[in-house]
Amino acid sequence: MISFKNDYSEGALPAILHALAITNEIQQGGYGEDDYTQEAIELIREKLNSPHAAIHLVSGGTQANLTFISSVLRPYESVIAVTTGHIFHHETGAIEATGHKIETVFAKDGKLSPSLLASFIDQVEVVHMPLPRLVYISNSTELGTHYLRAELIALYECCQSKGLLLYLDGARLASGMQAGDIRYEDLARYTDAFYIGGTKNGALIGEAIVINNPGLQEYFSYNLKMRGALLAKGRLLGLQFRELFKGDTYLSIGAYMNEMAMKLAAGIREAGYEFLIESKTNQIFPVLPWKVIKKMEEKYGFYVWQRVDEECAAIRLVTSWNTRLEAVEQFVADLKTCS
Amino acid sequence: MISFKNDYSEGALPAILHALAITNEIQQGGYGEDDYTQEAIELIREKLNSPHAAIHLVSGGTQANLTFISSVLRPYESVIAVTTGHIFHHETGAIEATGHKIETVFAKDGKLSPSLLASFIDQVEVVHMPLPRLVYISNSTELGTHYLRAELIALYECCQSKGLLLYLDGARLASGMQAGDIRYEDLARYTDAFYIGGTKNGALIGEAIVINNPGLQEYFSYNLKMRGALLAKGRLLGLQFRELFKGDTYLSIGAYMNEMAMKLAAGIREAGYEFLIESKTNQIFPVLPWKVIKKMEEKYGFYVWQRVDEECAAIRLVTSWNTRLEAVEQFVADLKTCS
Amino acid sequence: MISFKNDYSEGALPAILHALAITNEIQQGGYGEDDYTQEAIELIREKLNSPHAAIHLVSGGTQANLTFISSVLRPYESVIAVTTGHIFHHETGAIEATGHKIETVFAKDGKLSPSLLASFIDQVEVVHMPLPRLVYISNSTELGTHYLRAELIALYECCQSKGLLLYLDGARLASGMQAGDIRYEDLARYTDAFYIGGTKNGALIGEAIVINNPGLQEYFSYNLKMRGALLAKGRLLGLQFRELFKGDTYLSIGAYMNEMAMKLAAGIREAGYEFLIESKTNQIFPVLPWKVIKKMEEKYGFYVWQRVDEECAAIRLVTSWNTRLEAVEQFVADLKTCS
Amino acid sequence: MISFKNDYSEGALPAILHALAITNEIQQGGYGEDDYTQEAIELIREKLNSPHAAIHLVSGGTQANLTFISSVLRPYESVIAVTTGHIFHHETGAIEATGHKIETVFAKDGKLSPSLLASFIDQVEVVHMPLPRLVYISNSTELGTHYLRAELIALYECCQSKGLLLYLDGARLASGMQAGDIRYEDLARYTDAFYIGGTKNGALIGEAIVINNPGLQEYFSYNLKMRGALLAKGRLLGLQFRELFKGDTYLSIGAYMNEMAMKLAAGIREAGYEFLIESKTNQIFPVLPWKVIKKMEEKYGFYVWQRVDEECAAIRLVTSWNTRLEAVEQFVADLKTCS
Repeated sequence: MISFKNDYSEGALPAILHALAITNEIQQGGYGEDDYTQEAIELIREKLNSPHAAIHLVSGGTQANLTFISSVLRPYESVIAVTTGHIFHHETGAIEATGHKIETVFAKDGKLSPSLLASFIDQVEVVHMPLPRLVYISNSTELGTHYLRAELIALYECCQSKGLLLYLDGARLASGMQAGDIRYEDLARYTDAFYIGGTKNGALIGEAIVINNPGLQEYFSYNLKMRGALLAKGRLLGLQFRELFKGDTYLSIGAYMNEMAMKLAAGIREAGYEFLIESKTNQIFPVLPWKVIKKMEEKYGFYVWQRVDEECAAIRLVTSWNTRLEAVEQFVADLKTCS
Repeated sequence: MISFKNDYSEGALPAILHALAITNEIQQGGYGEDDYTQEAIELIREKLNSPHAAIHLVSGGTQANLTFISSVLRPYESVIAVTTGHIFHHETGAIEATGHKIETVFAKDGKLSPSLLASFIDQVEVVHMPLPRLVYISNSTELGTHYLRAELIALYECCQSKGLLLYLDGARLASGMQAGDIRYEDLARYTDAFYIGGTKNGALIGEAIVINNPGLQEYFSYNLKMRGALLAKGRLLGLQFRELFKGDTYLSIGAYMNEMAMKLAAGIREAGYEFLIESKTNQIFPVLPWKVIKKMEEKYGFYVWQRVDEECAAIRLVTSWNTRLEAVEQFVADLKTCS
Repeated sequence: MISFKNDYSEGALPAILHALAITNEIQQGGYGEDDYTQEAIELIREKLNSPHAAIHLVSGGTQANLTFISSVLRPYESVIAVTTGHIFHHETGAIEATGHKIETVFAKDGKLSPSLLASFIDQVEVVHMPLPRLVYISNSTELGTHYLRAELIALYECCQSKGLLLYLDGARLASGMQAGDIRYEDLARYTDAFYIGGTKNGALIGEAIVINNPGLQEYFSYNLKMRGALLAKGRLLGLQFRELFKGDTYLSIGAYMNEMAMKLAAGIREAGYEFLIESKTNQIFPVLPWKVIKKMEEKYGFYVWQRVDEECAAIRLVTSWNTRLEAVEQFVADLKTCS
Repeated sequence: MISFKNDYSEGALPAILHALAITNEIQQGGYGEDDYTQEAIELIREKLNSPHAAIHLVSGGTQANLTFISSVLRPYESVIAVTTGHIFHHETGAIEATGHKIETVFAKDGKLSPSLLASFIDQVEVVHMPLPRLVYISNSTELGTHYLRAELIALYECCQSKGLLLYLDGARLASGMQAGDIRYEDLARYTDAFYIGGTKNGALIGEAIVINNPGLQEYFSYNLKMRGALLAKGRLLGLQFRELFKGDTYLSIGAYMNEMAMKLAAGIREAGYEFLIESKTNQIFPVLPWKVIKKMEEKYGFYVWQRVDEECAAIRLVTSWNTRLEAVEQFVADLKTCS
């Protein structure tokens, strides 16, 4: 069975495994005090054109989110996100477990905008409601959509004007960037912090938290240790991000995943089906008859995302760094047969 | 420079790297729903002779401690530990950050006993002090000492009689077990839960939380997700523990580290030095003149553990799965030259 | 200026002040170990016909909610409430500050029903979303509506069948009970816990938490102390609830407030205005032209609750144990003049 | 039976009850927006000679401590206190429940000094231990001792030099101030914040949190609401502190309690007994034979504080605003008879 369930079904880029092998016996410092982590940080800083960005490597996305978000909020402060935001919808209350409310606004395409933000802020009451402090967005979003550069800048400026911090969840950053026009430098300039997803972009595990805002950098390591996010063998994370940020590796994985997803989408459209939402990233949401879904499930792994009506449902298909063109073609061929 | 700073300075057992390489392209389920994790769990259960133990793999020790401990306590309940206990001394308030007080008792050798426990319990007041609920011990301890089987059983029975849970931090479990007479089955019978340390025993990262007490097993996964401890690519953890628990691999690493540490200790003793505390595990604490320490620091990495007096301090030397006999011999030879 | 802003603008029932005066020099135990608290508890138990109910007196409603709710939840468990629920909307993230997410469903009339509950439960995912555990309702609700006995029973039975606890916020319990047909015994039988509001029903301060479910009673006092809710001079709370639960005092205050509110509503309707929502309790929400609102604000205190359109807004008027008939008549007369 | 158990066994100063009675029907704003609270705040500011102090009234001491302390700490920051400190010893883990570790140093007399503080700070490790941020002291202390002005200044300057905040728990502030030479202005200048105890100084309930440090004032009200400490009928607290801070009322209560305690102590000494620790405040700790204790317990209420040896134990006797001279004399007379 071929799985399109997600982008973490396989292991890691061969280059990462190779790097692990050839450095294995070299003694290194613990807790991120290893050479590889330092090299990774320097490579990322260069890409961002931001020599003073504080960069910390952690093992997973929920961990990145909860550790960073809780580190910048005072106890009575809240986060604003869209209702489909990963921290609100799919992290088992991880932010609330650190003591903070997530306020939500509904966005059909999973993207936050200055006007949605303003409409929420306008009805916040003093003292009897938490003070909103941080805005959370994802790129690409949980619905496969992505932000454009102008949208990111507008949102950041809106946040600035309202005393809000902007944080971007980049679990699928490469795919999101390649679908749009946001460049590394934009992330460094138009967010207070973000994380660069490794797990869903060819690493074994790992996410790189980047803190741009200098006022949020000091003491962040204490939070990492306190939340159980500071790995003794930080070298494992360092090596992977060093490999991902050599040359164009990181973004080219995103480009590859998007290409595979677009081929898949084209084939599905050719077979006569529509999509729940337009996506140019590695997550696509075709709407198929239940009967066809049942049939396809016999040979392929994927999630049924959302019931549309009696007849149809949207499924989610995700491509990865290791998705094969043959798998895509086979899927489309089988779909056409089913119809 | 050769480092005796800790047991996580190198990468992983070659068998682990090999397993990663040959399984890399095989698609697997996420979040621990992969074959390797299931295989690892079965191997561990067999060793423990405990088919119903709940086993969860996480990336680090502080994470294992905070996730498990916070999962079993009601808000007003506390943990009891010795003052040198890792959760009290060296985890940046990770347990308190989940809302719980750690009550401490002093133990010269870093080991908790029924009488120390009783003396603490006797002075607890109702309502105005937290209700003690869980006892935390480490094996081997933070001072390099270890528990004997009879001591573990006595402590567990004491806990049982007082309505307390017993939890064992096994960051250095193999070394602790090989120094004494505790067997896998004892851990399954005489603790409510414990974790098997991988990071300090030849893995890249990873610890295996074992929950023996059936009343504490249900819903534990929710805590993992909520604390950021549930890895999308759980396969990384599964593969490693599968390799460590094939045959005697896990314990034999402990035996090897202990052997290297004992050779080092013998050489140091031969050179005329005493130890802060007796240790049969992979951490030893020789007391050296400051002058000698300075000299040795030029060629070797280690921590100065504790000032003894004007003349002397204890240093900590730690051996690992990859410590070479030549390094041990070189250290001893250099020490003799220094003296 | 006469205030209809809320039901806590005045002091306390004269009987309460009298009781404070005549007991002032009598020495009593601290932390709720006083005779008055015991007497109050017995009076409440009699009303509830529930000799084993655990009853604890605290100083405020948010405190009652956060202390009780956090005491029964495991870390990964959530609360379900309507979006207008006080804990979600107006308590500054107090529940989230104890580490728990509040999941919400929308209800036009501010009341939760089995079908709304079921529709939420149906889409909860395992592990990646918190486990719902407690259902929060208010009676009367934040919109002035109230539950009927049959509705409470249906909701409780629905909760029971789904393994959920039912908790009722009784900040305005007397008003809510008098508007409908719920009796004290029903609260004891068809909720797991609830609180009886004193502050908004003629006390200086104070709410009585009643825990019906025996499994939730033990150790609750520890939570009170830990959350800062255990008053040294518990006598102040005990005396007040003793006075409120002598004879029919408590409910008769509710009846009086409702009567004043209904007179006010009748006058407003007579003056030609409609209401945002039907209410039989001490909170009413007439819809008035902005022009009229401005005029009335000169002589009366009240909150503008919600913009309706360009022309109109709903205001909130609240009656209290001390609202005078003359004030009600004057308001209506002035309103008629304004129109 | 006459109780010397504590200073909260009786009700309130008659002036407070009178003020409650004559203002009872006057409508006032909620949540501290009442005239009495504003008057109380102005009176306290005058006493402190500190027009910009932020002052907030809450219902109890644990609530004051947990709300203030948690409001100023970042997640990874800790509090330093002596082992007898109330927050460490007797508040059921209330501070830890907000996520913070309390680090302790031992002080025989229950008082923290710059040298004790320095010895703790010197051994704090970066990242792997919490960052100490706030120093907690009590005046009078839990052992009945008190700080002198010079000691307070020295401690504050030490804190300043180390980047630490100084917070003083004034549950028994009047007694502590009257025993030594600290004046109101000193509290405003040489602490970052403190609270003025009402409950143990003649109020029904209530403590006044005073935040001197302007950097800690903004948004504090949000914390109050979030922790359940913002009373709807704040007037109850306002009126009481208004009465306590008219003229010298507050301090004269302290003087009276101390006078009664000193008479009690003189009589006990005369009867031939020593004290566990020297105290000039309203808590004294005579050491009596067990036999005598048993006898005295028949007529008087008090706590056995600490076993001294086979023969003797220290008891705690506390005087209040309402302790009668006759009760003191009777106690001494009975003690002499017992001996």
